[in-house]
Amino acid sequence: MASVFGGVEGGGTHSKAVLLAADGKILAETEGPSTNHWLVGVDKCIETINDMVQRAKKEAGLDPNTPLCSLGMSLSGGEQKDAIDKLIADMKKRFPTLSQHYFITTDAIGAMATASDCGGVVLISGTGSNCKLVNPDGSQIGCGGWGHMMGDEGSAFWIAHLAVKTVFDAKDKLVAPPHDVTHVRKAMEEYFQVSDLMGMLPHLYRNFQKSHFAGFCKKLAEGAEAGDALCRYVFTEAGRVLAKHVEAVLAAAQEPLLSSDLGLPILCVGSVWKSWELLKPGFTEALDKVASSDKFKGRFNGYSLLFLRQSSALGGASLGAQSIGAALTMDYKANAKVFCQHTFNSSQ
Amino acid sequence: MASVFGGVEGGGTHSKAVLLAADGKILAETEGPSTNHWLVGVDKCIETINDMVQRAKKEAGLDPNTPLCSLGMSLSGGEQKDAIDKLIADMKKRFPTLSQHYFITTDAIGAMATASDCGGVVLISGTGSNCKLVNPDGSQIGCGGWGHMMGDEGSAFWIAHLAVKTVFDAKDKLVAPPHDVTHVRKAMEEYFQVSDLMGMLPHLYRNFQKSHFAGFCKKLAEGAEAGDALCRYVFTEAGRVLAKHVEAVLAAAQEPLLSSDLGLPILCVGSVWKSWELLKPGFTEALDKVASSDKFKGRFNGYSLLFLRQSSALGGASLGAQSIGAALTMDYKANAKVFCQHTFNSSQ
Repeated sequence: MASVFGGVEGGGTHSKAVLLAADGKILAETEGPSTNHWLVGVDKCIETINDMVQRAKKEAGLDPNTPLCSLGMSLSGGEQKDAIDKLIADMKKRFPTLSQHYFITTDAIGAMATASDCGGVVLISGTGSNCKLVNPDGSQIGCGGWGHMMGDEGSAFWIAHLAVKTVFDAKDKLVAPPHDVTHVRKAMEEYFQVSDLMGMLPHLYRNFQKSHFAGFCKKLAEGAEAGDALCRYVFTEAGRVLAKHVEAVLAAAQEPLLSSDLGLPILCVGSVWKSWELLKPGFTEALDKVASSDKFKGRFNGYSLLFLRQSSALGGASLGAQSIGAALTMDYKANAKVFCQHTFNSSQ
Repeated sequence: MASVFGGVEGGGTHSKAVLLAADGKILAETEGPSTNHWLVGVDKCIETINDMVQRAKKEAGLDPNTPLCSLGMSLSGGEQKDAIDKLIADMKKRFPTLSQHYFITTDAIGAMATASDCGGVVLISGTGSNCKLVNPDGSQIGCGGWGHMMGDEGSAFWIAHLAVKTVFDAKDKLVAPPHDVTHVRKAMEEYFQVSDLMGMLPHLYRNFQKSHFAGFCKKLAEGAEAGDALCRYVFTEAGRVLAKHVEAVLAAAQEPLLSSDLGLPILCVGSVWKSWELLKPGFTEALDKVASSDKFKGRFNGYSLLFLRQSSALGGASLGAQSIGAALTMDYKANAKVFCQHTFNSSQ
């Protein structure tokens, strides 16, 4: 199986695996639950990866006992070197027939490698959030990605948390809500199957599951679509803080990224982007301000928002192959698509 | 042992048990680790309580196999009825010789019962935070007490988190810090034994211990005493948000509480109040604003801050005795002391 390369996209809620031939042809795809080792633990993480890849081998008609050439993994939570080294060591030990070589990178870098080899900004808002600027020369700078205890601003978890916190603060009279909380409170009671705020405590502590908590975001999106002002507000705020992540990395962007015809490419990854129309007011307002600021006036002319049409498992596979000196053929134009293009008014 | 009453004070970091005679005489006192069942689980919670009380019986020269008359527990995390009922049922089953009767209330109500039977505000800032107004007629209204995922504003955990988050945001350029972060970053690296921000992740997730994380607050207090501006800032902010809790419950205060000579009694419980001088600027400024607001002008004339000189295990014991129709003699004047008295300028 010298010519089969594996890739994994690992999220906080769902994961995917893909097997590719050297010409980029997809041989098999499988899915699984969260493989964020911070959330599910190392054992569960590598078991899920092994299970997805072995199922993919069978689906592709390959011998599950023959290791892949390489397995490149694009994992949410795949940042800390010590933790990654341990993941790989454990995988080699427990699943010796899985792959000959392993490579782990973050979900952000895997997504970027799926969309382009020219760099840009990756802005993730799924269960958690993260932002990474990749320059044309390969240098990187990040903002966020620290998880729900120290960030995740603009993510599904953060949006769900902001909405729930607004209900708590209104009940406590600690902070007056920006809009009536009735709809959000009812939606919360329904989603979490509770009858009062006390009932939320097990969901926040003893039985806390980030993925389930973040799932409330979908109900808020429905409320926003139906016109509820507080639901709309939390998405506007999410858009604003996601734009703040772009602003944070912008100073490190090399000129070609800013001056390209389509403006700064921002690859938008994660399920919250399905609600782009709800994020838009806060997002565009915040970036308009950046563009007209003294620091960026005349330098930051616009941006393009792209989404992936393929799993970032492909980028993981590509980087995994590169790590052993091989090269997969990637069709970047087919993998990513511009869904919004914005040019700042030159008079700004 | 018909005349021996037990009390427990359960915190997020430390706990205490006390045995009292009906005349209020303290027969024995013992200490133990956290008994917040949200943090340590039900089993650990009741084992620690049993261990403390049984040691206290021995210390008092009593037979450990003879149950107490009642055991009144003032527990952080002791709010949710279902959870409390389960705690008591488990205790009865596993430790039948511990006590004949059980009573559980929150840390706030236990503290109030230690200091007074006329009501007032209890403002807790220890590992976590909470605020409760008890009216002279016994009616209560609360603000906060939802734990670190949904509140704890102004607590040691919150102060530690705010300081660490400021370091993360400064590093990420996501939010500009209000003051230089150098001292706090170094103190953080030293306290948590890490060399970079990545190293903080296990402390926030896999090995998260609220009590240990909150312990960083003490180092920040030391930094503030030594004059570091960011350390001083986080305590000022804590003072401000603690005062917001008082404001939140104030509208429900019955007239006698507001119009008493010493002003509104605010019982300050928890180790963060050791840093009162650091909290003071934010706390007093926020309450000054409340007093001069349209809503409270001329009604809210001042406040007294009190601290407990005895463990709120005493209040727990007193309430436990009351719950079975007994009465312990309490020396409120000896149990609590005014440490600050503030009258608003009548021209405000």
